[in-house]
Parts: sequence; C-alpha cells; structure tokens
Amino acid sequence: MGNKKSSKSEKSAKTPAAPLTAAELFRLPDGPVNLAKVSTERAAGGPADKQAAAAAMPALAEKLAGLQEKLYAQAIGGDRRGVLVVLQAMDTAGKDGIIEKVIGLCNPAGIKLTSFKRPTQEELAHDFLWRIERQVPAPGYIGVFNRSHYEDVLVQRVHNIVPKEIWSKRYATINAFERKLDRSGISIVKVFLHISKQVQAERLADRLDDPTKYWKFNPGDIDERGYWDAYQEAYGAALQRCSTVAAPWHVIPSDHKWYRNWAVAALLAQTLENLAPQYPAATFDVGEQRARLAASLKL
Amino acid sequence: MGNKKSSKSEKSAKTPAAPLTAAELFRLPDGPVNLAKVSTERAAGGPADKQAAAAAMPALAEKLAGLQEKLYAQAIGGDRRGVLVVLQAMDTAGKDGIIEKVIGLCNPAGIKLTSFKRPTQEELAHDFLWRIERQVPAPGYIGVFNRSHYEDVLVQRVHNIVPKEIWSKRYATINAFERKLDRSGISIVKVFLHISKQVQAERLADRLDDPTKYWKFNPGDIDERGYWDAYQEAYGAALQRCSTVAAPWHVIPSDHKWYRNWAVAALLAQTLENLAPQYPAATFDVGEQRARLAASLKL
Repeated sequence: MGNKKSSKSEKSAKTPAAPLTAAELFRLPDGPVNLAKVSTERAAGGPADKQAAAAAMPALAEKLAGLQEKLYAQAIGGDRRGVLVVLQAMDTAGKDGIIEKVIGLCNPAGIKLTSFKRPTQEELAHDFLWRIERQVPAPGYIGVFNRSHYEDVLVQRVHNIVPKEIWSKRYATINAFERKLDRSGISIVKVFLHISKQVQAERLADRLDDPTKYWKFNPGDIDERGYWDAYQEAYGAALQRCSTVAAPWHVIPSDHKWYRNWAVAALLAQTLENLAPQYPAATFDVGEQRARLAASLKL
Repeated sequence: MGNKKSSKSEKSAKTPAAPLTAAELFRLPDGPVNLAKVSTERAAGGPADKQAAAAAMPALAEKLAGLQEKLYAQAIGGDRRGVLVVLQAMDTAGKDGIIEKVIGLCNPAGIKLTSFKRPTQEELAHDFLWRIERQVPAPGYIGVFNRSHYEDVLVQRVHNIVPKEIWSKRYATINAFERKLDRSGISIVKVFLHISKQVQAERLADRLDDPTKYWKFNPGDIDERGYWDAYQEAYGAALQRCSTVAAPWHVIPSDHKWYRNWAVAALLAQTLENLAPQYPAATFDVGEQRARLAASLKL
C-alpha cells in the first residue's frame, strides 16, 4: 500500500495540472468577501501580457461565434436555453469596454443588450425587479445587462435611497429571481469588473485630458468616487450573499483592459461550451423539400 | 473663348472622374422600376472581386466604428440625430448576413436591432405602423430593421391579406411617416438586397444539403418562391412609390455576398459621414473637475 501511494504521487508529479478554467480562475474566494484582498491586476492564470492576450483573442472570438450560432439555432429547434451576462463595476472599470470588445465579437442578431439607467418614475412605481424581468433574454439569446438589479443593493444601499429594512431583504429576492431564471434555462454569468482606486483616478484623468472623451465624463463620477469604501463594502456584501450555485459571482481583475477583455471572453465561451449547444435536426422531410425545390426550377 | 473651352475640356479629360459614391452607385434608376433589368451581380463600381472586397473591409470597419462613436457621443451632448437602416429582401438574399457581417462591425452599445416577424394579435389590432414606431432608434443610435413596415405593402399585397383599397393607401402613409422621422433627425438608409431567382435556388439547396443549416430552412420558403414574380412586382412598386428625397431606396446587387456586404457597409459609412458627427464640448469646467479629482487622491 505504501508502494502504491508513492507511485501515485510520483505520477501526479509528472502529469502537469490542467490549467484552471475561467470559472475557476475568477470564482469568488471562500468565506467573507474583502475586495481589498482580491487582486485588481490578475488571477492565478490567463495571459501574462498584452501580446499574449491579443494572440489568444482570435481563437476565442471564433469559438464564441460558433457556439453562439448553435445556441441560437437550437432555440429555433425548440430548445429553451439562453445566457444572461450581468455586468457590474465601479465607474471606469470597463462595462462599456466589455460590450464593445467582447459582446462585439458576437453576432448582433443573437444579442439582447439592456443598459439600466437611473429608474424612471414608472419603474420606481413598481417592485425593483419589474424593469429587470422585462429584459430577460429569450431562449437562444445572449442577454447582456449593463448594470442590473444589483444597483438596488449597491447605489441604493450606499446612498440610503431606501432604508436598510428594504434593501437588506433584496438579497434573498434576487437569489430567488436568479434561481427561477436558471430553472427556466437561462445560464447567468455574473461579472464584477474589479479595479483599484488609483486606476480609476488615472482613467478619470484621461477623460479630462482628452476632448474626445469628455462625453464619457460626468462630474457626478467624482462625487461617487468619494463613496469608494462604502461601495466596496456594498459590493462585497452583494457578491457574498448572492453568489449561489445557480448563479455564482466572478471577480475579474480589470486594471489591465487586455486581461479584463480576455477574462470575460473566456468566461462567456466556457459558459456556452458547458451548454454544449447543438444544431437542431430538420423538422421537415429533407428529400421531399429537395424535390419541391427542384420542381420550382422547372416552372 | 473658344480657347478657354478647349483648355477646360482638356483639363477634364486629364482629371479622372471621381468614383461614384455608394449612394450614387445603388440609387434607384429613374422612371418605372423593373427589377428584372437591375443587375443582381454588381453596379457600376465597387470591388471587382472577393479579394478586393476583403481588402476594402478593414478600412470601412474602422471608419464605421469611428463615426458611430461620434454619433453616439454627440447625442449625449444633446444632438438629436440618429440613423435607421431598413433591410428588405427576398428569402436568402442576406438580411441576416448583413446583420452579422456589417452591423457586427459596429459597437453593440449603439445598435438597436429589431427583427419584425409575423405580426402578433396585439399588433394586428393596431394600425400597421404602431409596432414600427415603437422601435424607432433614439438619437445617437443606429437602428436596424430586419424586415419593416414595407412587409405591409409586400407580403400583404402579394397574398391579398388586406384588400387593395387598404394596401394601396399605405405608400403615402409610409412616406409621411418617413418624412416625419427624417425631420426629427433620423437618417433613413433603405436597402433592398437584390438576388436572382437562380441564386435563391442555390442557397435554398445549400440549406437542404448541410445539416448545420437546416435551422435556416422553412418549407414555407419554397411556397413563397412560387410567388417570385408577384413579389418582384410588389417590390418594384414599393421602391418606386416610396423612394423619396428624404428616404431614397437603394438596390444592392446581392448575388455575391462579398459585394453585398461591402456595398451596405459603404452606404452606411457614407450616411454617417454625411452627418459629420462631432464629439461634444465639455458641459463642465474641465479645470475645476481636474482639481476635484486631484483632491480625491489626497484623501
């Protein structure tokens, strides 16, 4: 037995460990979440530099496009599965960048993108999930939420827009909503783009130094920056309380745009791969339709 | 004077004529429209072959991306302009291909894509433009209609779904609607993807020969093919009666996918170029915001 053990460990020493998947790389650490202790630069894997990330993107883009087409096609065949990407982040962390550089790799025909802004009067008159539920993707689609129902436990908590008695109950409501979505066939990919306070300052400064970026700047961004610690705490709570088996949170180190874009593309590709979408079978008699087509040529 | 004239014509003989713009290349011929006489292969310009088209696309993609960002940015600055691309075509002509290959070059954040299917009971209970008006793009966006209000003078005319008394009045209603849109700042790019009946047969055969394409095939496509001539006539009427100064129709030769994609990309780029979108000025005091940002670093 001692012998067996030693030969086993010898073998495992020789076999290189499989690289971590994107889901493994970016999964939330166990226990209470302290975002200050999670790297904003890189996780324990992925491309080492900008060149390596650029080299990895074409294959990821091709994989995404192929899997997305199958997801779309199988829904036409009656399958009920779809995907929902939820993007949350501090200002400048790159939600818009992910939409341009990662979602932009997909076929727009199968994308349903919703940017949630400050709620309208009509939206405020309803339960906080009312406007969210209306934007859930149909089977076959990749839905993308640029901000989401998480704002209702983030900005609303940080600024006391609703009392603790209200927002503290929303975590459970969100978990129930996401569980329902998952059961209906929608795979949820929740992504927190994690940046340092210093990098945010640099990006805000860029926007103030470049007249072609003024439109991205809002004086309110600096007001919000003043609440950095409160936001980090609120994010920590949201990530911890709403990271479930059905819909886990992922923390994406986002100080480097090239790493961030690669990471989200890899995570989305892995999600699609896990769904293993398949082209549907014909719902018609192929031979019969070929004959009808041939007949139409003789007319 | 004679001298002057001759030197002028000499000069014009030496100066090569400027190449036709996309809008000029694809504009509807004058007079009654007989689509049988319009080439489905190429217009009087554009890339000569697949390689030339592929070589032209990266520059077009860059131009589209740059102009689209400015269009989006200037709307945030208060500008009211936007773009609406209307795609109409016989089955297999490439509406979905244009969305993947041309609209896919744009940033999804600024795209509002609507695919109009067979109207629902609720939509049928309203005026035919009701469902259309709800999908008009906001300023800064490029709206894309995959099928459109033109179905109401095409399929509805060909199949007598509504009597002539109804559909014949819709041309004027459509022109008034599009004039209103144009006045509100939305530039309308109407595109008819023109293919031959032979090429349609080849593409339908492809879908029947390749199991990864079955999902694109519907037996109803062959039924519709039986109405080819009636559709061509209905398209001719729609193009002629609804090609206005505010919203002209363009006929895109679409037997070759590479030509078709280049043509629509060039037309969209020209439309955006004509709008000459500009990054908006800062709506805040840049120096003051820089000082606030600097102060946030000292805290």
